[in-house]
Parts: sequence; structure tokens; C-alpha cells
Amino acid sequence: MKVIVIHDKKDLRIEEHEVQPPTADEVQIQVATGGVCGSDLHYYNNAGFGTVKLREPMILGHEVSGYVRTIGANVSHVKEGDLVALSPSRPCYSCKFCMEGTHNHCLNMRFYGSAMPWPHIQGAFREVINALGAQCVVANGLSAGEAAMAEPLAVTLHATRRAGELLGKRVLVTGCGPIGALSILCARRAGAAEIVATDLTANALAQAQTAGADKTINVTENADALVPYSSDKGYFDVLFECSGSAIALSAAIAALRPGGVIMQLGLGGDMTLPMMAITAKELSLKGSFRFHEEFAMAVELMQSGLIDVKSLISHTFAIEDAEKAFTTANDRNVSMKTQITFS
Amino acid sequence: MKVIVIHDKKDLRIEEHEVQPPTADEVQIQVATGGVCGSDLHYYNNAGFGTVKLREPMILGHEVSGYVRTIGANVSHVKEGDLVALSPSRPCYSCKFCMEGTHNHCLNMRFYGSAMPWPHIQGAFREVINALGAQCVVANGLSAGEAAMAEPLAVTLHATRRAGELLGKRVLVTGCGPIGALSILCARRAGAAEIVATDLTANALAQAQTAGADKTINVTENADALVPYSSDKGYFDVLFECSGSAIALSAAIAALRPGGVIMQLGLGGDMTLPMMAITAKELSLKGSFRFHEEFAMAVELMQSGLIDVKSLISHTFAIEDAEKAFTTANDRNVSMKTQITFS
Amino acid sequence: MKVIVIHDKKDLRIEEHEVQPPTADEVQIQVATGGVCGSDLHYYNNAGFGTVKLREPMILGHEVSGYVRTIGANVSHVKEGDLVALSPSRPCYSCKFCMEGTHNHCLNMRFYGSAMPWPHIQGAFREVINALGAQCVVANGLSAGEAAMAEPLAVTLHATRRAGELLGKRVLVTGCGPIGALSILCARRAGAAEIVATDLTANALAQAQTAGADKTINVTENADALVPYSSDKGYFDVLFECSGSAIALSAAIAALRPGGVIMQLGLGGDMTLPMMAITAKELSLKGSFRFHEEFAMAVELMQSGLIDVKSLISHTFAIEDAEKAFTTANDRNVSMKTQITFS
Amino acid sequence: MKVIVIHDKKDLRIEEHEVQPPTADEVQIQVATGGVCGSDLHYYNNAGFGTVKLREPMILGHEVSGYVRTIGANVSHVKEGDLVALSPSRPCYSCKFCMEGTHNHCLNMRFYGSAMPWPHIQGAFREVINALGAQCVVANGLSAGEAAMAEPLAVTLHATRRAGELLGKRVLVTGCGPIGALSILCARRAGAAEIVATDLTANALAQAQTAGADKTINVTENADALVPYSSDKGYFDVLFECSGSAIALSAAIAALRPGGVIMQLGLGGDMTLPMMAITAKELSLKGSFRFHEEFAMAVELMQSGLIDVKSLISHTFAIEDAEKAFTTANDRNVSMKTQITFS
Repeated sequence: MKVIVIHDKKDLRIEEHEVQPPTADEVQIQVATGGVCGSDLHYYNNAGFGTVKLREPMILGHEVSGYVRTIGANVSHVKEGDLVALSPSRPCYSCKFCMEGTHNHCLNMRFYGSAMPWPHIQGAFREVINALGAQCVVANGLSAGEAAMAEPLAVTLHATRRAGELLGKRVLVTGCGPIGALSILCARRAGAAEIVATDLTANALAQAQTAGADKTINVTENADALVPYSSDKGYFDVLFECSGSAIALSAAIAALRPGGVIMQLGLGGDMTLPMMAITAKELSLKGSFRFHEEFAMAVELMQSGLIDVKSLISHTFAIEDAEKAFTTANDRNVSMKTQITFS
Repeated sequence: MKVIVIHDKKDLRIEEHEVQPPTADEVQIQVATGGVCGSDLHYYNNAGFGTVKLREPMILGHEVSGYVRTIGANVSHVKEGDLVALSPSRPCYSCKFCMEGTHNHCLNMRFYGSAMPWPHIQGAFREVINALGAQCVVANGLSAGEAAMAEPLAVTLHATRRAGELLGKRVLVTGCGPIGALSILCARRAGAAEIVATDLTANALAQAQTAGADKTINVTENADALVPYSSDKGYFDVLFECSGSAIALSAAIAALRPGGVIMQLGLGGDMTLPMMAITAKELSLKGSFRFHEEFAMAVELMQSGLIDVKSLISHTFAIEDAEKAFTTANDRNVSMKTQITFS
Repeated sequence: MKVIVIHDKKDLRIEEHEVQPPTADEVQIQVATGGVCGSDLHYYNNAGFGTVKLREPMILGHEVSGYVRTIGANVSHVKEGDLVALSPSRPCYSCKFCMEGTHNHCLNMRFYGSAMPWPHIQGAFREVINALGAQCVVANGLSAGEAAMAEPLAVTLHATRRAGELLGKRVLVTGCGPIGALSILCARRAGAAEIVATDLTANALAQAQTAGADKTINVTENADALVPYSSDKGYFDVLFECSGSAIALSAAIAALRPGGVIMQLGLGGDMTLPMMAITAKELSLKGSFRFHEEFAMAVELMQSGLIDVKSLISHTFAIEDAEKAFTTANDRNVSMKTQITFS
Repeated sequence: MKVIVIHDKKDLRIEEHEVQPPTADEVQIQVATGGVCGSDLHYYNNAGFGTVKLREPMILGHEVSGYVRTIGANVSHVKEGDLVALSPSRPCYSCKFCMEGTHNHCLNMRFYGSAMPWPHIQGAFREVINALGAQCVVANGLSAGEAAMAEPLAVTLHATRRAGELLGKRVLVTGCGPIGALSILCARRAGAAEIVATDLTANALAQAQTAGADKTINVTENADALVPYSSDKGYFDVLFECSGSAIALSAAIAALRPGGVIMQLGLGGDMTLPMMAITAKELSLKGSFRFHEEFAMAVELMQSGLIDVKSLISHTFAIEDAEKAFTTANDRNVSMKTQITFS
């Protein structure tokens, strides 16, 4: 089978690996579609991010869907030919955090395509993969591309739930890449009355509007656009910070009303924050990390049509054009979610 | 002007009252539409309910909209001709509960069309009414009938917010009169993944389906329909109890999963509850009473199209046919929300 | 070894059973002290309660402590001679509720001394018991009697945590048996500013006062004692209902302020509630059932002196006088917590 | 009467002002004791802080108590001679935030001794003051010094309540000045099982121990002392950050367990935060600002002996020695709370 391996910065190779048989707890899946995520791009562009460095060749990818080929003896909820969304999250189910039900904090997490542990956890950009039954969520009725969106959608569903109830609330989204656009879909689904989105590129803002933003602001053209929202101690109830930019976060904090909530989704390094405003307005800045039960929830909400991610899939390339997929995903002026088809 | 006055059980009269001038804090409104609510029906059918008894003639009605005629000197947010939704809630803004921001628990509340205080609070089924500026929410863009739905919608928005975040949750609604149907609209808007509704009449269940219920159950035909949802300690995360029936509540409790939430909206008298199940499954039974900021929220969500109540308005009668409006509203087999037009 | 077996109503026998060797996951404990709980009394007085009926002889008891004798190969956190508090809760750690971290709702729970499942789960009133390592919490520094209080204390800690933060709050406790008295200790520890306790017996109220109640009310002598607390929509923020009496609950509901919380701990059967008051005051009635992490928390809080249960242990009998222990525990006029020593 | 006025950096003067008569809504108070707060020190040391600059002479002080002299006609809850704790917080009771019950975010707040508005709000370090009845909380039974602690205690009670329930939790306090030490008292009162405190000075840590910290750490001597608490993703549930130091905050974040809460009380300017850890551990960083109902709560908890602040009052000077009070308060090696007596 073909796999997509990153060897070093800008050194992406398509290689041939051997297919292994699944165990009794596993399902063998013919991978159909995989989405290129920001962390895949970090490995492609810089061979890592922050303190995480690529130290051996690693198969990329953690947003994939596929069709069931073979089913291990202990797995009963899928049948041959089912389309499944494949959760990249494989917690140990036995550490103290798994026991508390917070599997996303598992001490022994194996998450596809991550260079954080050593040896690295190999990813899912391959034609065939064996996954635990628990990782497979039946996604029949969706396209393979939609099913591959379950992972990033689960990330934003998790953050939206952590934000508390949103019915009738005013929401600001800073940064409208795939995570920002999905946050807009989730906030609207959760009942937000008004959604304002900011970004630096016209393409991202057009996507944000399609996703349901009531108003979009290009902060390159108008750096002070949030100032009117800052009078009388601020306007927005909730901020989804998806840019990872300290400048965006500071401007947004001024526009949050007392008691407001900041969901921090954008991953940057250290950030300098206006702590006096956070204290004096009694804001709550909350981290949100990955997901657990939200993965199945993502599939269900797409299947029922309650959340529609189709407009976010901007480009699809065959595995042979993987490098082109990465360079396209790199260009925020043209792409939103870029996907690769495997079979 | 004409007003609709209840004198005694089934003694409804249309009378002529004199129009008073508004004060500087008030707006004079040409009433357009008024909805018949369950409490109006209680006065019509029984001259009261529970310990509340009609002791003097009282103008009915508290779900009304109308057009601005004259504006008091201290009111600035409305202009002549505006359609306004009129909140029936007039808290004192100075008691300890108002000071805490829980105006719905105001110790000196004056709520239209209520025989609870003495003298009774006269209602809003009249051609002209003077209301505080704070009671008037501009509803331009809506029909007068929709604007008159702001009040019951505010009731269910308040309950939905008290239920906590609903994204991806499983919801059961027992009783599909107007409050049940509006609860379905709110739960869906707030992100519920699955909504099951029960009632005793086919008409109510048809309406529930139109409002967005994924499944409807006629418990007259199938008393055990919830039993399959009760295995493994239950299925639903949240119950909106809108029937006021202890039988419905008990059956629903069995179908709630551990940690589930019961929003009690149906107003009955004393109810006998399966306390052992509430304790052992650690359920939370929460009362919900009226609304405050949700009234303006209701108007905004209808204006933006995020909640559409139009299908719930089943009948509209001219003021001359007020009695017919009440007898129609009494018949759950044909009506959902019955409204009266005043001008 | 000697064990205390209930055969039928008032048919309590001390029998000889054979000691089994512990498995590699178990610890063998020389039981020191066991407390008589309300459910033990139900079996003794009525051979069951509600729908739960004794169908075979069953060893009673689930509040015990003891000394470590032998340690299975897979257990490492205890050493020979340690005093341990023994949790009666043995969840499966694999059902969906255990996976969510809500082990107290385990679908396959094995809780000592319970006739609910068939065959019944044998209890811990025996001289020697083999328990999973996970059930044993080291309690060195406590007396064996105190360590045996970890179980009922864990029940009330769990309920207190579910009540939300209590700092500066006003608390009402109805029913001052052991669970009521422990609720007083927990509410005070959690920061309650004022605690009022009601009961029908002078002995229980004296204990409540020792536990820290600021005021005690004998509702036999003064049925209307809570009426002054009911003006202006009520006074108390939180109610710990520990009587299982619908009369007590109704009187207490009138004394709760809008938004108040009812923690239902008293186990009765069906109860008739003033639903109109629950709705109109937006009360939250919450069930609370057993505990999980609170068992170790109970031991730690006793060890550090932050909660002192010693005054609640009113009587201690040798195993030979087990029947006397049960008749004493039955008499609320003289006893609070009655314990039995086993070795 | 004598008043303490700051004219410029290190230019503190005792002046004679004329006493004004109280209005019908006011109480005239003979000020007894006033505590020197960090913000008073900022004015004394630097004539301001951050963007807040002294632009006219200003009476300092906002932590005072005194005895009732004259009572306005509209005030009924105090009587002549009562000791009162005087809240420095005078919200407008009519802006949108007051209407929502969040008076600490009042748009028109008048808080004693603040150079933020223009003209500045004059403070309470004076022999006689006229205050609204609503600002006066009867504190009979306390010493005047204790009563003057109501304000900083209210600050920490507010923060502790915002931290959520603390029963059995593990708490870290960074920075043990008066606010840190009061946070320790509050966390213990709210049920914390374990409290660890850090600071740079031996004097502060000795006070922290007296206040109830289970362990104190001098981070000057041992910069890595929190490292052992950082294994397995961290140990503490809640952090009270009272140092205003980014270094302290970063070290503490590493020691917080997933889902942990940071209460930010220390006022610094911009701070650089390890955002990746906040995101990946899903921490919640919450601002806390002043107080509202907690002021009366502070008095009540001191009166009932549930919180004892006496050990924190390290120095008391007569008004004539005001400058000495400020230089003493400046020296964290010797002082905790320094107070001034006025009559």
C-alpha cells in the first residue's frame, strides 16, 4: 500500500508499506479520504513546531475516513463496506484521567501522526489502516470527504460545549481557517444569535460568511474594526480564538463584555495578554484540547443535516498529488480544507 | 376602545373602556394581535386555577403585539408606527430579587391578566394599551401574529437556557401544546441531536413534527412506548415536561439517563414523583418560571429567522369572535396557538 | 470466622464461615469495626424495603474498617498492619458509565450487603474479608471506628459537592440521623454561614447541635417553626433533605428562596411534591447517590482533622451483641451511629 | 477633621477638612480604623500605576470601619454607636450591569480613593465620613481593626466563590501578601483538603502558615520546588494567583492538573503566558474583580468566628504616624496588613 511519509522539512515522499493483518479488536479499513490539518503542515513546513521535532520518518495524517474491509472477531458494530469516520484518538482507557472520563488527557495517548512521543506515532495517510473498533464510527450516508471532517468538527464541538450554553448569545470568532469556520458552524448550531468573524484574508472571510457569520471583518483593511464593540465595557459574550495571534486576542478581549468567555483554540507558543482587562472584566479564558465523545457526535450531526461542512472542503487531490495538496493547504488565500483521496 | 373581560366561568364579555393618556415613561400602543394562553383558558373555563380565584372582572391576555401610537417623553427606543412585541412582565426594579438580576422573582411583579394579586392585574386584550418603554421590544419585520408569540417563546427560551448546553444532546418533550412545541423549536435551535415528543392527541403530535421533533409518540395508542428507552438506566439527557401530568413525568423519568435534567414547565398542582429513581439516577428536576432578558432574545431570534414560529399559529379570530377563539383554543384536537386580532 | 447473617425479618444470626484466600488483586483484611446503616436496619426490621426483598440469607454490612493481613501480588499501596477504610463499592470499570467517570452509576455494581441483585451481594460484617486493592484506603492515624465512618461521610461529601459552592450560604437540614448530622459537618466544612436543622427527636437535634448546627428545631413541638423563613419567597439557599418525609420536604420548600437547591438524600418511596412552588421559585431538586472519589476524600479530611465525626459514634457493641446493636440503632431517641467491633 | 491626602509620589500630608452634614440617604461615621492596601501604596510610591496617574490631590483609603454618629432619615438598619464596616463600593444601581446584578461592573462606579475617574474619587482615610446606608454593614462584636478587614476579605471571598466548589480540593496560592493570606483562609473555609503557598519572603510564608497553609515554599531558596507537583500533568485543582508575577504564574500552571482553575487576583500589567499548556490541559484562567454581596458575607463570617483575620493585622499606627504606616506596609519582610487608627 501507498503511504505519505514526511522525512524532513519539505521532504514529503509517497512510499510502499506492507499491509498488516488486523487483530481481533481491530477493523481493517480501506482509507478513502484524508484532510490536511495545520499540524501536518507544521511538519511539512518546519519538521515540527515549538519543542516538537521530527526525529524519524513519520506517516502524516489524522483526519481520515474509509470503508470497512475486514472485521476483527471482537468487533460487532460495523459491517463490511460501511463508510467509517476514523478517530485518531487512541487513549489507554486505564490511566487516572481515562478513569475520570477525561480521555483527551490520557497519560498514554496514541494520537495518529504525532512526533511528540518517541518513537513517533505513525499517522493515517495510507491506503489501508487497522484501527481499534472503538475508533470507528459508522458514517453511512455521508460522502467520504464529509466523514473525514469528523475530526476537526469534533475539536470545535468540544470547544463549543466547554463554552457553556450559547442560546441567544453574541459570538466573536478570530481567525477563519478550518477551525474558525467550524466554530462558526458549531456556534450557530448551538443557538448563537449573532456571529462576527475576523481574519486577514478575503478567502477565509468569504468562507466564514458561507458558514453562517452574520458579519465578517478584514482586520488587514480595518485594524480598528472591533473598537465600536468595546464601548460600555464590551459587547460579545463568547470569543472563539482560532488565530493563535496575540494581537487578535488582545483586540478581542477589549470587545468582550464583563463575564465573557474566551475559548482558546488557536495553538501558538507563549502569548502576552492584557491581564488587567481579564481581571477587571472577570473574563474566563479556557483551553480546549481535542475531544472524546464529540467524535461520534460530529458524525451524527452531519448525518442528520444539523451541521453541514460540505462548503468547507475547498480542494481534493489524488494521493499522487499529495505534495500539491500540501502547497495548496499552505495558501490561505485560496484554500480552506484540502483533502487527499487514497483509493 | 373594546376590551375582553372575564366576569366568571364562561362569562366572557366584550366591553367598551375609555382610553387613558400615556405617562412620560409609557408608550401608547394600538394592539394588533393577542394569543390565548393556557392561563386565559383556566379563567374562562374555571374562573381560576388552584388557589387563584377570580374575584372581580378582569381583562384577559398577556401575549400581545401592536403598533406604536404615542411615545412618552422619556422613551427613546421606539418610533411611531413601529411594530412592538409587548412584554407582560413589569417588575419593580427595586426589590432584592430585581437587584440580584432575577426580575422574574420580583416581589412586586405586575404581570398582565393575573388574578393572583388583589386588586387583579388587568390584562392586554384591548384595542389600546399604555405600557412602559421597557416593556416594548421593536419587532419590525415580523408579522403581528409572530410578534405576539414573543411571550411564550421567551418562556421556553428561559427554560432551555436553564437546562444547560444542549449541543448533541438527546431530548424528550412530554406534552406538545404551544409550550411543548416551542420547547422543541428551542431545543433544536440550541443544538439537540435528537428530539422525541409525546402527547395524547394526533393534532399536537403533527405540530410537534412540523416544529422539528425527530420522532413523535402517541401515548394514548402506546402507553409503553418509552419503555425501550429505559434500558441500561435510560437514554435521554434532558426532559422538557410540558404536560403537567404526573403519569407522563413518571414514565419520562424512567427514560432519563443518570445525571439527566428535567425542566418542569407544565403547571399542575401537587404531583407524586418516583423519588427513588430521582435519587438513584441523580436527576436534577428544575423549575422554570417566566423570563426576563429572553423576551428581547425571542424577538431577535424570530427576526433573524433562527426560530420560526409561524407554523404554530393555527387560528386567528377577530375580536368580535373572541368567544369562538376561546372555545377553539380549548380543543387540542384542532388548535395549537389561537390568536385574536384587535384592529 | 464469624459473620452476621440476616435470614428473615428479625432473624439475625452469627454464623461461622470459612476464610478464603485473597486473589492477586485483593487484600485480606481483619475487619475491626462496622457501622449499622439504615439499609441494614431495613433488612433487619422488614427483610427488605420497597421492591427489594431478601430471598436468601445475606451477610449484612457495608461501613467497615480493618487491618491489612495479606496483600495480593498486584496491590502495592498498602502494607501489613495498615488500618484501612474499606469502600463497599466495587464498580466494573468497563461499562459506559464507568467509562464516563460516573462509577456510582455502574451497570454492574457490586455493593456490599445488597439484596437488589440475584444472587444477593454478601456484606462486610465478618471477621475477615478479601477486597480489591482499589477498595482499600489507608486510614492510619484514625481510630477503627472513625475509619468505618468513611462510607457514610463519603455519601454526604458527594451530595455536598453536587450542591455547588456553599461559601457564605444559608443551609437547612431536615432529618438529623447520621446522614443529616454528617451533612451538617460537610456543609460547615464547605463554608455555610448558617445551618438550621430540624428533626422529630431531641436526641438527634442535640447531635445536630454538636455537629455544628447554628439552630435546631423540633418540628414535633413546633410544626410551624419554618414559617418565618418563608416570607418574601423564602430564606435558605440549600436544603439537605435527609428525612425521606414528604411533609418535611414540603415545609422546607416553602422556606427556600428562588433559585434554591434541594439535595435529596433521604430515601423514601414515591413522594407528593408541591410542584407549583418548585416551578415558580425555580428550585432545583437534585438526587445524590452513593459516591466515588469522595471515599478517599472522606478519609483524608478526617485524617487532617478538617472533619471530625467522633461525636457521632454513639454506641459500640462486640459482635456477640450484634442483635443489641441493631435494636439500639433502631431507637433514634438514644442512638446516632451504632457500631460493632469484630476483633 | 484630619484627612490623609496624597499630593504626589512620597508626598503624603495630613490636612484639615471641614465635615459635611449627611443627606437623608447617608450615615455619618466616626472613622475608627483603616487598612493600607496595595493600591494606596502605588499612589504613595509612584503617584499611580499603569495608565492611572494622580492628577489632583486625593484622600487615600478604602478599607475602613467606624462608629455611627448621625443617621439620615431614610436609613433604618443602623443605630447610633454601632460599629460598621464601610464598603468602598458605591455602584449606580441603574446601569445595565447593576440591573443584571453584577454591580462590581457598574459603568458609573464610585470606589473610594481611586484616581481612575476625573475628578478623582476621594477616599476614606479621614476622621469623619458620610456614606450611603447601603455601604454600611453593622459589625458589632468585631474589633474596629477586624471590621476594616471586611473589604480585602470580600475580595477573596468573591474570588473563592468564582473558583467553584472547593470541598476536598488541592489548592496552590502564589504570593502571600494580605490577598494571598486571605485566599488561604477562604480556601480552607470552603473545604480545601490541601493548601500549598509560595512567596519570596519568610515573613509572608510564616503568615501563610498561620493562616492555615499546609505547606509553604520559599521560591527564592528553591525555584524548582513546584516541579515535583508537575509530573503526570500536574497536581493542584485550583490556583489563587496573588503575586502578579508571570514567573510565578508559569511555574504554577505546570503544577495544575488538567481541567484546573486559575483565579487571577494579582494585578500586574501585561503578562506572558504559556498558552500551549493552558490549551492542552484545558485550564480555565478566570479574572476576579472586587465584590458585591461578599462584603456583608465577610462581616458575618468574621462575626460567627468562621473566618478569623486577626493574625493578619501586623501593625497599627495612629493617624499622626501615617507616613510610618506607609513605609511599614511597603516592607513585606516585616508587615502583613498595616492599619491606621483615626480616633
